Amino acid sequence: MVIGADAAGMSAASQARRRRGPDELRITAFDRGGFSSYSACGIPYWVGGEVAERASLIARTPQEHRRRDIDLRLRTEVTEIDLDRRRVRSRELDGGTERWTGFDQLVVATGAVPLRPALPGFDAPGVHGVQTLDDGGALLATLEHDCHRAVVVGGGYIGVEMAEAMVRRGLRVTVVHRSAEPMGTLDPDMGRLVRTAMEGMGIEVVPGAEARAVRLGPDGRPRAVVSTAGEHPADVVVLGLGVRPHTELAEAAGLPLGASGGLRTTPEMRVPGVDGVWAGGDCVEVLNTVSGRYQHIPLGTHANKHGLVIGTNIGGGRASFPGVVGTAVSKVCSVEIARTGLRGREADAAGLDWESAVIESTSRAGYYPGAAPMTVKMLAERGSGRLLGVQIVGEEGAAKRVDVAAVALTAGMTVSQIVSLDLGYAPPFAPVWDPVQVAARKLASQPAR
Amino acid sequence: MVIGADAAGMSAASQARRRRGPDELRITAFDRGGFSSYSACGIPYWVGGEVAERASLIARTPQEHRRRDIDLRLRTEVTEIDLDRRRVRSRELDGGTERWTGFDQLVVATGAVPLRPALPGFDAPGVHGVQTLDDGGALLATLEHDCHRAVVVGGGYIGVEMAEAMVRRGLRVTVVHRSAEPMGTLDPDMGRLVRTAMEGMGIEVVPGAEARAVRLGPDGRPRAVVSTAGEHPADVVVLGLGVRPHTELAEAAGLPLGASGGLRTTPEMRVPGVDGVWAGGDCVEVLNTVSGRYQHIPLGTHANKHGLVIGTNIGGGRASFPGVVGTAVSKVCSVEIARTGLRGREADAAGLDWESAVIESTSRAGYYPGAAPMTVKMLAERGSGRLLGVQIVGEEGAAKRVDVAAVALTAGMTVSQIVSLDLGYAPPFAPVWDPVQVAARKLASQPAR
Repeated sequence: MVIGADAAGMSAASQARRRRGPDELRITAFDRGGFSSYSACGIPYWVGGEVAERASLIARTPQEHRRRDIDLRLRTEVTEIDLDRRRVRSRELDGGTERWTGFDQLVVATGAVPLRPALPGFDAPGVHGVQTLDDGGALLATLEHDCHRAVVVGGGYIGVEMAEAMVRRGLRVTVVHRSAEPMGTLDPDMGRLVRTAMEGMGIEVVPGAEARAVRLGPDGRPRAVVSTAGEHPADVVVLGLGVRPHTELAEAAGLPLGASGGLRTTPEMRVPGVDGVWAGGDCVEVLNTVSGRYQHIPLGTHANKHGLVIGTNIGGGRASFPGVVGTAVSKVCSVEIARTGLRGREADAAGLDWESAVIESTSRAGYYPGAAPMTVKMLAERGSGRLLGVQIVGEEGAAKRVDVAAVALTAGMTVSQIVSLDLGYAPPFAPVWDPVQVAARKLASQPAR
Repeated sequence: MVIGADAAGMSAASQARRRRGPDELRITAFDRGGFSSYSACGIPYWVGGEVAERASLIARTPQEHRRRDIDLRLRTEVTEIDLDRRRVRSRELDGGTERWTGFDQLVVATGAVPLRPALPGFDAPGVHGVQTLDDGGALLATLEHDCHRAVVVGGGYIGVEMAEAMVRRGLRVTVVHRSAEPMGTLDPDMGRLVRTAMEGMGIEVVPGAEARAVRLGPDGRPRAVVSTAGEHPADVVVLGLGVRPHTELAEAAGLPLGASGGLRTTPEMRVPGVDGVWAGGDCVEVLNTVSGRYQHIPLGTHANKHGLVIGTNIGGGRASFPGVVGTAVSKVCSVEIARTGLRGREADAAGLDWESAVIESTSRAGYYPGAAPMTVKMLAERGSGRLLGVQIVGEEGAAKRVDVAAVALTAGMTVSQIVSLDLGYAPPFAPVWDPVQVAARKLASQPAR
């Protein structure tokens, strides 16, 4: 039985079904929403217009799941998990029918919910989170009104992606955020590059500002966002404040939560201490293998891996999820943003003695047409030279270079080992030293202090 | 003292100079040609017109080297190395002055020479190798004649890159090559994809054909290439038959050559058995750490690393070159080609029991605009699941994905470990499973045989 029919839940269901036929294993999946297996990460691009059809974001339709003998019950909310009697209570949103359904194995994949401040006006129509397809559709409906100015509250991934979407829709965009620079998952010096680039695109960035209210007009719709930095005119407000694990149901059933509020799991994605209960996706916390700490990192790519691991294990195979290194990539219009491993503050928190280097390079050989600039920051442990993290801000061809660092982090490589890596080189693809290696060279040659 | 003033030689000189001033270390560098520190890999793009200026390919001019107190003697050929008396004999090409110059440390960086078949017509004007800037200039001069048809002899990296250059110059292009498919560094099934793509661009590909002669007109210039497959009309002939290490001088001095004809070196890039003699770049052979065998892999990126290692060691530091994993990337017009590790034949030769998977995926989320198709082939050791190699053929965004596999090979990862890698995901950058991971998933789920 699966609670939550998106990436983690339905990957688990599909993988289990691939290994065990309907005679061996009955699979039921519940979801409160009306969709299954869709790309939440794609919503900004649907709102922005790059993706024309909502249907494009749906990886597998309910019909496809049902054809594979997965009993998918949409618009059906699970309201209680009864671990003692191994059953869940569900309620159909249309009609309100309630029933109990028993399980042998339970997969908790309840996802995350967007943070929405309990402040005046934030629950008005025209103030939008963008976590579900329904959210995206509601925002698109608002944009059909006479909208000229958008305020995005929050400067993280969702914030900058939604800023791009609003720019593409032709709106004037203001991003209001709390930290000194946008993209708080980067060090401030790298975040500043993002801010400068956003300002160059005509996006107004208001750093260090706390939202206080949405001021509404007589029609009950937004006129402005009021923050500690002033009043920012808005016809539409988009929330990019991040998400928290959606774990009320699990918590009520007594399942263990970590410090981040996400469910704890074993590497096999079992919920520890309870037999036959699994959890994955945006409702769990994951081990960052660089810091050794657990974090809540809601990303579709992790959710899919969790689902694969759970489905393999339920299906009789053996799989585990070793954790993450903290990789994330994003973009605002033409500016690509990437990070992996630890940023300075995280390295401090882990008690590490570290040093860093920042270099500028290009995506292709400098003389090759389309060579785009990028800045790479690399952190390494002082003394050992062990790689700790990489951040990249640049133009086309910048972000995915972080993958090299992600693999090197997983392998525990030093900056000297990175200098020696045999990466693909030809003038249309890279300078003769790949930008990540240029940063590693700089760190490797810094005198020990 | 440095023999050969391109990537390896001048990287060594620059790095040594950075560590030791002119009072501590005198540096003299000889080169037969008229240029130093240029990007030979960029020549196809200069010939093709993407790079307008020859000067763009020069990373550092002779003047810049001389300003850093490197005594650079261009158009000066070293004709003899006298190891007993630790001196070299040189001859100025203009004027013919000969002299002996002593050394404490010698860097042999004599590069490679293009293979030119000893067949009728192959030494005529209008038949061009493309190894040096002078070669590129000569080819461009030929193209100013009335040229309509080009025949490229050889279907490897240089062959396909020069085919692209000729297409860009507006010529009708025929590529004649010996193997069953172009790109013999790929498995034939992947090479076939390259052939199909080239044919789709209007390039005539003649596989399995051995060149026999260049038929010349009364003006002494090419009219056609004659091969075992027939006669191929040509106004200009480009040689892409690869290169061999340029080691006559080193061999005559008694320095040890490997089976590939390249100089053997230690990981510190010393020539073993001789004190104070170093070698790097296209004249040496390198250790492939996946197969454990030595190979001749002439690539600017290796040459630069060799130079860095040699210069660091001569300058009093410590560095070594651990070897390569066989990564190479290239393109023909819009088609990107990449490989790393071992292809099937190489895995056989290394006595490995291997299996492979071939998958199709896209560069971005399938629904995101510009998602370009790619085919990924992955080889792994049967039983252990250890990654052995990856080949990729696709469109924009395909080739550099091989870097993930290159790092994974260096770290000795298994396909299961690759499935778990935390690679950058967002719809504009990748599908939720990166194509390399899709291939790893397929291999990881194949039943053991």
